[in-house]
Amino acid sequence: MEPFDDVYFMKKALVEAQTAFDKGEVPVGAIIVLNGQIIARAHNLTETLNDVTAHAEMQAYTAASDYLGGKFLKDCVLYVTLEPCQMCAGASYWAQIGKIVYGASEPKLGFSVLNTRLHPKTKVIKGVLENECSFLLKKFFAEKRNLN
Amino acid sequence: MEPFDDVYFMKKALVEAQTAFDKGEVPVGAIIVLNGQIIARAHNLTETLNDVTAHAEMQAYTAASDYLGGKFLKDCVLYVTLEPCQMCAGASYWAQIGKIVYGASEPKLGFSVLNTRLHPKTKVIKGVLENECSFLLKKFFAEKRNLN
Repeated sequence: MEPFDDVYFMKKALVEAQTAFDKGEVPVGAIIVLNGQIIARAHNLTETLNDVTAHAEMQAYTAASDYLGGKFLKDCVLYVTLEPCQMCAGASYWAQIGKIVYGASEPKLGFSVLNTRLHPKTKVIKGVLENECSFLLKKFFAEKRNLN
Repeated sequence: MEPFDDVYFMKKALVEAQTAFDKGEVPVGAIIVLNGQIIARAHNLTETLNDVTAHAEMQAYTAASDYLGGKFLKDCVLYVTLEPCQMCAGASYWAQIGKIVYGASEPKLGFSVLNTRLHPKTKVIKGVLENECSFLLKKFFAEKRNLN
């Protein structure tokens, strides 16, 4: 039986990213886990919804808070296939999320290079299934270029 | 007749902030203007919706994009009674908003002190009806303290 570890949950976030890919969206997926249970799943929908705020993480925060009936996610872990941007990291500050685990890095617009402030209690783990996460993004942008 | 200037539109944002106040929400209001016309109105609903992403600005971006049928707000002006946070400024980067006009400053968690990156084409004007905007916030927190 597969252990319920960071790799296991990142694979679930990758399933979401693949769903975004299949819709023609920049393929980023996110899930939120509480006590080993997935309480929210989301993927990027900025094109479908015509809405820059529809990043996977933002929808996952909203869904998780709705599930819990409270806006703080202190005991939750966010798994996301791409390093969060300023907006999504900024939202994680307000949600006081316990841990962020991400796959691929975003060297230009990721929160770490832009020094976005996280909540002091938020832990960060990066590089989980990094190759798989970035492969999907590279494939997406390569196909976009070939279409233009 | 009252001119359609920054003060005029900030007063409209203040009406939204007062609505938030009346609901027991931190009183922040926002509107989005395109060519002198208000295309979105919103106020903070984080408590009502149990959702940290429900800041006034975020809802205003979503509503304006929905109205326009496109996710970019390049020719739009955001009027907001309080300086945007990292999340809301981060969203404005993606929306490429033309201008941000805010009232009260947020010296601890505002985007300017936290160096959140705005889109290079976004202009910023601060301090419009600053006293009126901050008065409402101070009144809110003073009443909260008295209740506890």
